[in-house]
Amino acid sequence: MKLLITGGGGFLGARLARTLLARGTLAGRAITRVVLTDIAPPPADLLADARVEARTGALLMHTEALRDEPFDGVFHLASAVSGECEADFDLGLRSNLDSTRALLDALRFNVNAGGAATRVVFSSSVAVFGPDPSVPLPAVVTDTTLPAPQTSYGTHKLICEHLVADYTRKGYIDGRAARLMTVTVRPGKPNGAASSFFSGIIREPLAGMEAVCPVDASVSHPVSSPTRTVDGLIAVFEASREAFNGRTAMNLPALNVRVSDMLDALAAVAGPAVRERVRFERDERIAAIVANWPGGASADRAARLGLAAHGGFAEIIRQYIDDCAAAPNAEQTLKGLSR
Amino acid sequence: MKLLITGGGGFLGARLARTLLARGTLAGRAITRVVLTDIAPPPADLLADARVEARTGALLMHTEALRDEPFDGVFHLASAVSGECEADFDLGLRSNLDSTRALLDALRFNVNAGGAATRVVFSSSVAVFGPDPSVPLPAVVTDTTLPAPQTSYGTHKLICEHLVADYTRKGYIDGRAARLMTVTVRPGKPNGAASSFFSGIIREPLAGMEAVCPVDASVSHPVSSPTRTVDGLIAVFEASREAFNGRTAMNLPALNVRVSDMLDALAAVAGPAVRERVRFERDERIAAIVANWPGGASADRAARLGLAAHGGFAEIIRQYIDDCAAAPNAEQTLKGLSR
Repeated sequence: MKLLITGGGGFLGARLARTLLARGTLAGRAITRVVLTDIAPPPADLLADARVEARTGALLMHTEALRDEPFDGVFHLASAVSGECEADFDLGLRSNLDSTRALLDALRFNVNAGGAATRVVFSSSVAVFGPDPSVPLPAVVTDTTLPAPQTSYGTHKLICEHLVADYTRKGYIDGRAARLMTVTVRPGKPNGAASSFFSGIIREPLAGMEAVCPVDASVSHPVSSPTRTVDGLIAVFEASREAFNGRTAMNLPALNVRVSDMLDALAAVAGPAVRERVRFERDERIAAIVANWPGGASADRAARLGLAAHGGFAEIIRQYIDDCAAAPNAEQTLKGLSR
Repeated sequence: MKLLITGGGGFLGARLARTLLARGTLAGRAITRVVLTDIAPPPADLLADARVEARTGALLMHTEALRDEPFDGVFHLASAVSGECEADFDLGLRSNLDSTRALLDALRFNVNAGGAATRVVFSSSVAVFGPDPSVPLPAVVTDTTLPAPQTSYGTHKLICEHLVADYTRKGYIDGRAARLMTVTVRPGKPNGAASSFFSGIIREPLAGMEAVCPVDASVSHPVSSPTRTVDGLIAVFEASREAFNGRTAMNLPALNVRVSDMLDALAAVAGPAVRERVRFERDERIAAIVANWPGGASADRAARLGLAAHGGFAEIIRQYIDDCAAAPNAEQTLKGLSR
């Protein structure tokens, strides 16, 4: 089968591609080709796989050609992130709304030309939720909590959820929207997103660096590991329509943790000296943004697909350490860890 | 003040224009100009008012020019209706999504050029609600019921609600989305919409004609009179942001009636002979569509703006009769009524 992963050069897209290529099959069929689109080329290990084809450039550059190119499955992960959308409103509309519309219309074009409806997993986000004076935000958002986005990014994700649902209703795609939780621990550098510290307060101390936590230790947030997030996307793809149960978006499993839980887990896994590299320095701008985010999420529909979050944050840290240890730059990324 | 009414040539848009012109003021300011855009020209009485300017053609033809033309207020009513959107998917996307985006971007352009944020009332619809396997539809939908549209029309309305909210959050407009209930009694001919019979079973018998009711008498539905609907749009425009309370969409008041209630009211107001002109002949296609609609709606936020539905359906029929009696073609429209 031939797959398309938009945003396939990014952290999550590349990880999804690796996982799929290692499995070799999806929904019982052999994966013969994986097309990765992204503004930057994918990592070298993916390019070295003969099944992989990279198409570099904004998604909108590629969608016209997709009209004549059938795919068996699409993972649509490409997106401008929240900080980018807040800074450049037009960029957000173009990258998140226009690109998704163009992608869905390309797939519709295929169906109108006699092709089968392509299965599409759209990566939505817990960012669709937020407090509005008319809609108090519950402590734990469920699959059926009323979304009230507080950012353009969350707005775009919600809009695309409904486009995916309507194109699915019409038979133009077989679409499923899954809401990703905040993925941690992300490798690499801080990325300027308000949620960046959820990875930074683990990643930096493990690398022997100091980290600043800009919010109170009591702040709670729904997070997920990269592995469980990728597993969730794949399970949503493989689910029958009956098992997916409807056309509305589904929350992926969340581990609802307080910052203090995360740091306790860091001390337990890596030792108190590592945890001591995190200091609290409140950033009012970030704290105000985070205050608009849900403190937790539940995922009843995903649970019925057999998906679950990690049992505790220590598992997530251990997974990150294992990932780093297997990578060539382990000396750097785990510099702070006495092993 | 200078106002724009999109869809200003339609039944509701023209009625809103008449009401505003008769009042002469809106939000305490004199109305000096009312621009009506629609694919068809507005009725002659509106064109005869020196304050009225008609711009005929699809809204998308006009939005580019709006970038350089400030308005003090916009009522955005223009929309392809549900039947049109189901028959022509591209038409629906263009008429409902692209047009709204272009309108909002024109207003944003004004703000970016130094203008004030224009107050915008967007007419959304009770059609945003529907049943999904994952979200059972409550008997009465509230302001905070999770929307799950079952038509492209409902999808587009919901998407535009969220665009309006986000452009408002950014300060590009001062937007308010109000969900209209099914407006009845509409004058004129059946319009092919699945909801058309909610007017037809009253309008046709009063004109001396037979009418067919395609659903069971027990079917319940949230309706509103044209007057109360227009009053609702005006009240939402005039509300302070604090009184509107948030950026999510607000239900306008509904009278939740069963078809049997409507026909009982018809017999009470116009006599049993008029009611006898309605016969039941189930149309499975229409019955299936209507089965996906909410049986009722509540409007707590609108109530706090002082808005209420009629006390009973008889009031709505009497309003329709009074409207017809005042119009030149009363001989035809009230032909079935012995007076």
